[in-house]
Amino acid sequence: MTSRIIVTEPFDYVVFGGTGDLARRKLMPALYHRDLAGQLPPSARIIGVSHRPGSTDAYREEIGKALTEASARTDDARAAIDRFLQRLFLVTADGRSDDGWAELRVLLQARPDSIRAFYLATAPDLFDQICRRIGAHGLVSERARLVVEKPFGTDFASAHALNEAIGHIFHETQIYRIDHYLGKETVQNLLALRFANALFEPLWNAGHIDHVQITVAEALGVGQRVGYYDTAGAMRDMVQNHLMQLLCLVGMEPRSARDADALRDEKLKVLRSLKPIDGSLVPALTVRGQYRAGMADGAAVPSYLEELGERAQPSQTETFIALKAEIANWRWAGVPFYLRTGKRLPERVSEIVITFRAIPHSVFDGAAGPISPNRLVIRLQPDEGIKLELMIKDPGPGGMRLRQVPLDMSFSDTFGVHVPEAYERLLLDVIRGDQTLFMRRDEVEAAWGWVDPIIAAWQASGEPPRPYPAGTWGPSAAIALIERDGRTWHEDGA
Amino acid sequence: MTSRIIVTEPFDYVVFGGTGDLARRKLMPALYHRDLAGQLPPSARIIGVSHRPGSTDAYREEIGKALTEASARTDDARAAIDRFLQRLFLVTADGRSDDGWAELRVLLQARPDSIRAFYLATAPDLFDQICRRIGAHGLVSERARLVVEKPFGTDFASAHALNEAIGHIFHETQIYRIDHYLGKETVQNLLALRFANALFEPLWNAGHIDHVQITVAEALGVGQRVGYYDTAGAMRDMVQNHLMQLLCLVGMEPRSARDADALRDEKLKVLRSLKPIDGSLVPALTVRGQYRAGMADGAAVPSYLEELGERAQPSQTETFIALKAEIANWRWAGVPFYLRTGKRLPERVSEIVITFRAIPHSVFDGAAGPISPNRLVIRLQPDEGIKLELMIKDPGPGGMRLRQVPLDMSFSDTFGVHVPEAYERLLLDVIRGDQTLFMRRDEVEAAWGWVDPIIAAWQASGEPPRPYPAGTWGPSAAIALIERDGRTWHEDGA
Repeated sequence: MTSRIIVTEPFDYVVFGGTGDLARRKLMPALYHRDLAGQLPPSARIIGVSHRPGSTDAYREEIGKALTEASARTDDARAAIDRFLQRLFLVTADGRSDDGWAELRVLLQARPDSIRAFYLATAPDLFDQICRRIGAHGLVSERARLVVEKPFGTDFASAHALNEAIGHIFHETQIYRIDHYLGKETVQNLLALRFANALFEPLWNAGHIDHVQITVAEALGVGQRVGYYDTAGAMRDMVQNHLMQLLCLVGMEPRSARDADALRDEKLKVLRSLKPIDGSLVPALTVRGQYRAGMADGAAVPSYLEELGERAQPSQTETFIALKAEIANWRWAGVPFYLRTGKRLPERVSEIVITFRAIPHSVFDGAAGPISPNRLVIRLQPDEGIKLELMIKDPGPGGMRLRQVPLDMSFSDTFGVHVPEAYERLLLDVIRGDQTLFMRRDEVEAAWGWVDPIIAAWQASGEPPRPYPAGTWGPSAAIALIERDGRTWHEDGA
Repeated sequence: MTSRIIVTEPFDYVVFGGTGDLARRKLMPALYHRDLAGQLPPSARIIGVSHRPGSTDAYREEIGKALTEASARTDDARAAIDRFLQRLFLVTADGRSDDGWAELRVLLQARPDSIRAFYLATAPDLFDQICRRIGAHGLVSERARLVVEKPFGTDFASAHALNEAIGHIFHETQIYRIDHYLGKETVQNLLALRFANALFEPLWNAGHIDHVQITVAEALGVGQRVGYYDTAGAMRDMVQNHLMQLLCLVGMEPRSARDADALRDEKLKVLRSLKPIDGSLVPALTVRGQYRAGMADGAAVPSYLEELGERAQPSQTETFIALKAEIANWRWAGVPFYLRTGKRLPERVSEIVITFRAIPHSVFDGAAGPISPNRLVIRLQPDEGIKLELMIKDPGPGGMRLRQVPLDMSFSDTFGVHVPEAYERLLLDVIRGDQTLFMRRDEVEAAWGWVDPIIAAWQASGEPPRPYPAGTWGPSAAIALIERDGRTWHEDGA
């Protein structure tokens, strides 16, 4: 283990939606793992806030059960979980009324000097009211911070209004808009690769890169989130945040200063350089899909509409998007960025694929075989890793025959260490006051500014999303989108 | 096994020095392995020529013994060796007289249409006479070829004279000057890496490469070759051929056509671009050494002079050289090529190390740690492989800490196949008529043209080589040669 563990300053994490799914599945385990690593100071507390009546004891029992199920069943783990649970408190309060807020205030005032992080893990329509009550009840201390989960608005106007609302209570330097993709180890590594190696930067431009692919594929269907999902769709749920953030990190210039804003300035420049896709371009540059019944993991699975049930049929919500973007600047002009995301695809995989240009001229004869362009594959999940595809000589006697080999670097293999979950890093970045991996207001709004006209054009066209069978790579039009440029989607083993 | 085995045309390999060390240790095993792979046609013969009286039967027995010792002791291997031995013939003949040549002629005339390769694996002072007798006895058929082992001359004048002599009997397109370093798999791979990947060529110049190191280190002492070696020294034995050829392959431009001469033209251009090291520069740019007694593999070993015995003390022959070369052209001006070779060094290792320039500016804070320049390490022996050293993020929670990792590609690991010996490839390249990996006349002479003034300056100075203890990396002046440029020799684990 090469990490250095630096204990954070004392803090109170106030989690609105403290009994919700995100808190139970992600936030509490993340904080527990950091506690296990010795990074939480003795006085650190985690205060769940829930509209559901309950007691701290019952809350500790509930979270303890969730942590136990996910842990090794050793005495050590049991003891560590018990220690962690002592940090937990439950307050019954709601964004919709002032009930319970006095209790929260008393709890927080016991530690006036601690860092105070308010985490909004509730339905987004409560964000505004919760913030106003945080302000009204005098909870915004000198050292207060606000963490906002996605979705951050549903379009430019709503995101702008939300920014205005929370901006009345918190200063922008106190606001942490979370996108857990940015906390992934491989995303960090993309920055290290690009800017700690002299090898890549000279090649990182239209002169040497043929195109970029960003895929975020899920094997699961929409599941229980169908109510929210049907109002959002893949564009709002995945593209506007995750995929566009990844695009920014691939495309941005090196920052000139070392602070968080220098990096976010560069991402913003990319977002503002994206060539607008207006109504006339939408049919050529975008493909929407919605899954039908099909197969997943060898079993029959229902269609999106079946999962939706009687709620809103016939729904025109897309569960799949493929699109072709371009960053219109000196570095990238003419280089397509193909983005693709969807539910009920053949496998869960998130990756960035940088395909370099072909060599300009072969000095080898025909017997050497085909020469594949170099590719850099940055895998975000399921197993984070980086792969560089090179051509080498096929070993053996006789003439020169070429062969593609991957130089592979899987982090868990290479280091044999626990690669921390994205939330572990991000939750503590908030406490450390490091905004580098969080989206700034202008970034979020710029992303909506690019996405809105595409959604509007779809709605104006009245055309439904193209159907695709569950368990396939989306509608055939998504294949055509890239194939008509003479390129192919990267698929494992391809 | 991915190699395709293509059976060669019928041939007679005539090996002068057929009972010598090289034939027994390298040439016969190489041909045997190609036979084992099914690449030799039924009619192929190998004719050993030796001044030592003997019979074909005794010769087969002798070679059979050598092959058996090096093989798995299975019935299959035994049968394969027996089959191979039926190809062998011994002719007792000598370059110094015409005795026995008629017998050789009769043997060869039995297969007038076979490719006829004459391999000179004798003492070099016989090359000229053997060639003249090959000519005089009418053995140069339409399909004759000549393979010449090193050393090819001892300076420009002698190499030129030898070229003239063999040039009277054989056309340049029939002459194969062998340097077994060029037959190594990794050398082939250097060509594949450079010219089958779009990644490297844009970086392969003074703008992006800081310096190049070429090391050919031997752990052994001079051993039984001391008589020859004391007249040659490391410069003639290693630098003029192996190291300079490797330098050419790293430094050359891509060839424009696919034939052997296009590649050799490019190597020649590099040799002719080498900045001359004249007398006044020799002290600053070269270091000579000679080993004293010391330790090797935990045992005491004698000095070079002790190994030399009473032959020529005090000898001023160098057993170690370090030098700093520069290719004076647009691609490489200002980039040092540090060359180093010696006997009784700490380990047997041959490698080419390309160190890229440091990043121009770090966007990471001090806590990220030092950022090492990227390096590409091409290992020729003992285990052939390629390693690319990159900086990545050290996995773990918390801030960005950087760490160097090797992307490693060891051929035997990766492919699990028998990587053929250099001689296997080269011996059959002669039969296939492929001169790509053999040195052309003008290359050999250009290399001597660069080396001669350095040797002359050493002799003129009258200074003896610097002593170094056996089992060390040469005299401390060799360390100083590179350290005063702010660089360091690459050593394993360093």
